[in-house]
Amino acid sequence: MIDWRDLTLLLVECADRPGLVHAITGVLLRHGCNVISNHEFVDREQGQFFMRTEFTGEIERDVVEAETRAVLPGGASVRSTTLAPRRVVVLASREHHCLAEILVRHHFGDLNAILTSVISNHPDLGSFVAGFGVPFHHLSHEGLSRAEHERKLLAVLEPQRPDYLVLAKYMRLLTPEFVFRFPRRIINIHHSFLPAFVGAKPYLQAFRRGVKVIGATAHFVTEQLDAGPIIVQEVLPVNHRNSPQDMAQAGRDVEKLALVRALQLIFAERVCLSGNRTIIFD
Amino acid sequence: MIDWRDLTLLLVECADRPGLVHAITGVLLRHGCNVISNHEFVDREQGQFFMRTEFTGEIERDVVEAETRAVLPGGASVRSTTLAPRRVVVLASREHHCLAEILVRHHFGDLNAILTSVISNHPDLGSFVAGFGVPFHHLSHEGLSRAEHERKLLAVLEPQRPDYLVLAKYMRLLTPEFVFRFPRRIINIHHSFLPAFVGAKPYLQAFRRGVKVIGATAHFVTEQLDAGPIIVQEVLPVNHRNSPQDMAQAGRDVEKLALVRALQLIFAERVCLSGNRTIIFD
Amino acid sequence: MIDWRDLTLLLVECADRPGLVHAITGVLLRHGCNVISNHEFVDREQGQFFMRTEFTGEIERDVVEAETRAVLPGGASVRSTTLAPRRVVVLASREHHCLAEILVRHHFGDLNAILTSVISNHPDLGSFVAGFGVPFHHLSHEGLSRAEHERKLLAVLEPQRPDYLVLAKYMRLLTPEFVFRFPRRIINIHHSFLPAFVGAKPYLQAFRRGVKVIGATAHFVTEQLDAGPIIVQEVLPVNHRNSPQDMAQAGRDVEKLALVRALQLIFAERVCLSGNRTIIFD
Amino acid sequence: MIDWRDLTLLLVECADRPGLVHAITGVLLRHGCNVISNHEFVDREQGQFFMRTEFTGEIERDVVEAETRAVLPGGASVRSTTLAPRRVVVLASREHHCLAEILVRHHFGDLNAILTSVISNHPDLGSFVAGFGVPFHHLSHEGLSRAEHERKLLAVLEPQRPDYLVLAKYMRLLTPEFVFRFPRRIINIHHSFLPAFVGAKPYLQAFRRGVKVIGATAHFVTEQLDAGPIIVQEVLPVNHRNSPQDMAQAGRDVEKLALVRALQLIFAERVCLSGNRTIIFD
Repeated sequence: MIDWRDLTLLLVECADRPGLVHAITGVLLRHGCNVISNHEFVDREQGQFFMRTEFTGEIERDVVEAETRAVLPGGASVRSTTLAPRRVVVLASREHHCLAEILVRHHFGDLNAILTSVISNHPDLGSFVAGFGVPFHHLSHEGLSRAEHERKLLAVLEPQRPDYLVLAKYMRLLTPEFVFRFPRRIINIHHSFLPAFVGAKPYLQAFRRGVKVIGATAHFVTEQLDAGPIIVQEVLPVNHRNSPQDMAQAGRDVEKLALVRALQLIFAERVCLSGNRTIIFD
Repeated sequence: MIDWRDLTLLLVECADRPGLVHAITGVLLRHGCNVISNHEFVDREQGQFFMRTEFTGEIERDVVEAETRAVLPGGASVRSTTLAPRRVVVLASREHHCLAEILVRHHFGDLNAILTSVISNHPDLGSFVAGFGVPFHHLSHEGLSRAEHERKLLAVLEPQRPDYLVLAKYMRLLTPEFVFRFPRRIINIHHSFLPAFVGAKPYLQAFRRGVKVIGATAHFVTEQLDAGPIIVQEVLPVNHRNSPQDMAQAGRDVEKLALVRALQLIFAERVCLSGNRTIIFD
Repeated sequence: MIDWRDLTLLLVECADRPGLVHAITGVLLRHGCNVISNHEFVDREQGQFFMRTEFTGEIERDVVEAETRAVLPGGASVRSTTLAPRRVVVLASREHHCLAEILVRHHFGDLNAILTSVISNHPDLGSFVAGFGVPFHHLSHEGLSRAEHERKLLAVLEPQRPDYLVLAKYMRLLTPEFVFRFPRRIINIHHSFLPAFVGAKPYLQAFRRGVKVIGATAHFVTEQLDAGPIIVQEVLPVNHRNSPQDMAQAGRDVEKLALVRALQLIFAERVCLSGNRTIIFD
Repeated sequence: MIDWRDLTLLLVECADRPGLVHAITGVLLRHGCNVISNHEFVDREQGQFFMRTEFTGEIERDVVEAETRAVLPGGASVRSTTLAPRRVVVLASREHHCLAEILVRHHFGDLNAILTSVISNHPDLGSFVAGFGVPFHHLSHEGLSRAEHERKLLAVLEPQRPDYLVLAKYMRLLTPEFVFRFPRRIINIHHSFLPAFVGAKPYLQAFRRGVKVIGATAHFVTEQLDAGPIIVQEVLPVNHRNSPQDMAQAGRDVEKLALVRALQLIFAERVCLSGNRTIIFD
């Protein structure tokens, strides 16, 4: 296996036209890069080209970016990055399962991330988080308007310069103003197989509807509730013997798996966005 | 394996109270029945008891039914039956995949059913059905009101005395009047993971929403479109490379599987209804 | 939901004959028990009857057990118990994922168990376990014969009076002598879809064979390696892009899920044994 | 959607070295081809490069092949082809489910294949096949040595010039001599999750072992029984209530799905071989 410190990523998004792969690989070849893996996709409906290339070789990243941009159509997005751990803040409320999964993986170096802190609107999980040596901030929303509460959040968040915010069963709606500050950078886990059962109490809804399969959806948060781009969906069978409580309990297992898989994909820069759909280069 | 001709089923549904299993098994014991398998379920929310018993032994079915009824609370439903093949009419339109699956299984005796005929509002599948030696009726809806068309359907259907109507991609809505004539006896396959994507073009909807899992739902038809009790749901993963056409094509595989599994459960009397939820004794 | 403190379980296993359900439910009825759920199964190949009944009602457990035994064939196993948390010792080595899953669920009361300690032949996980307030014993196997090491294990284990030993990626073989002391009471997680890839390095074997699905198997430990009764199997798809390391990493997710599901079933007394096969009353 | 008649495929396999993608796309660009989709994979263990490119544009295929070969390392395999239907002979015995699935899809044009005939060592399925208008040959093996029977098979097969032979539950072993004549061109469906339960009666083996998941494996046939490269594996859960007969019946559903998916991948030239492992470009 190649150490991530020796790898560089080139991420390209532009209008489709013939010759793009040839042109981009030409730039990399001139710089003596050795391509390790290459993924391309053309969204024909949108006429948009996407490419993710992993390569080794010592390069000047801004030079390669500029030369790549020069061989592409105008308006291309070209980004060169590495697989360095991403800076992450987790927002939680009272439920522990998704947060614990993240904390354990972070603790053992299984999540390509630096968890700068956990913020919760409830104090309950504070000592558990502290046991992992991760800073915990309790920011109660009691007696505060949504805007006031988010100002307090931002005051804690922003100095940590997070690459991503992860909503690990954070049970508060975020305002569009807040969401706009972190475009494509807030990931939520929704406790249902979206778009079924949007809104509250999805397991009770699922029970009442008598479904035979339940699921969980990890998605980017956009200003529109439960409608952001889907990253990962996991499902599991249920039956008539399962109460809504059973479904919720079983659902927690797929929630935490779906969330963590989404984070692994995102932190490895394997998720692109084409309109409201994700392209997963796995 | 025991031949179905030697098996009797007793199906009980009543208000729950202590001692029901003891009372029912007592009746069967007095008649010298040998219980092969026994399933019970109590829907605690509804306070309703359900039991399905498979047994061998020569009995007078109406005597056993009456004696069972006598030990149960008032209003109990007690039904004794066998696993004799069910009489089935299939309604189809132009798509062949679900119909072909049923015809093949019927042909080789894998479906516990007698297919009395296939009725379609289009002529396309006529020769294919004829190849299996099953009667085919083309009843066009062109130029007819919905009520007129259904009258023609009924005129063909009713003399066949079907136990069940199976909608194998039948692309016409049925009126409540029609549905009321066949309570719990019409089974439909819906080409989505209900309740996601109700209504038309579910695969296009799924593509647009960017889901990562699609599904199919076999359900009883009630007067409310796409809201009847769910019997079987099957799912399969999809990704950004799948067009709506790919999703539809992949979906056909799970549609036919879901429908056939539902039919197998129903024809074996393994499906009970508690409100709008199914209880599956498998 | 009914509090487990109000529930009693009756577990029966005996040679099959007509009238068993009637006889057993008769005993419970005479004692005024209210049956909450009832599962029966007859293994026809073995001619063996199994029943698990959950009921409320204040009873004298030994009286009910004796009266039940009296209505059953000779040699019947009758056991009455509750859903009180089981006493559990976990054996681990260096890998953390299964152990961490157990520790987190134990910490939040999601596992119906009292974790009396974790024992490892390596010191690595000591401080992690300590963070959860669970005793950790490092019993190195270095320089010891297998028998000597197991004697040290037993010296630590036995005073804790465990109901179950859980091998959470414990990478040492146990001798038949050790296994015999804990019949049906040692649960292991095997990192493959048994019986494929028994023995060492299953993910490397799976990679070399080019399989498209990998799995994990939770099973009871018997004197025969990797051949004990299977409790839970979980699978997940893999492809040609996955290295053996990728498969191992992905495998860890299903390993911990399979192990925890097995523990939940066992601690709820939902697992019976018929020969080398498990009967799961879920 | 693009008509397959307008598409050309270029399939490359060679030793890996930097610049291959750039070189190959350069050839296509010079010929004015418009790349529709592109898949590459490097098997690092084998140091082998694989690429599948779908493009439109009128080209002289042998010129493009030769120019591509010229820019690659010695020993490269370069093949240009189309998505024209493949010529296929199906070998069957008595079981109908896989054969029927193929016949139905072939009949409705859902399988990218021309079924030139079905050959069986039993007469049972003859009239069923005839109903689909496909030639059926009954070549009994009774009283013949394996070599003699295969000579008769070849006499019928070879004039049909099949691209592929599909063993749809063909219950006869093929000799290495026969297999060598059709390298990478014989596809079998094995009724288990290989490598578990190789050999005879896999469902009985699975039942006896008490597994909780069964499966089916579509694979290329090589001279070594049940050890050829795996193309598709499908699984489904089973439980203690399933008899070996139940498992076999449930297994048939995944067998036919696995086989048909494998055929779809192969007929679309999406399957490459790297040693004994398949690379699936889907």
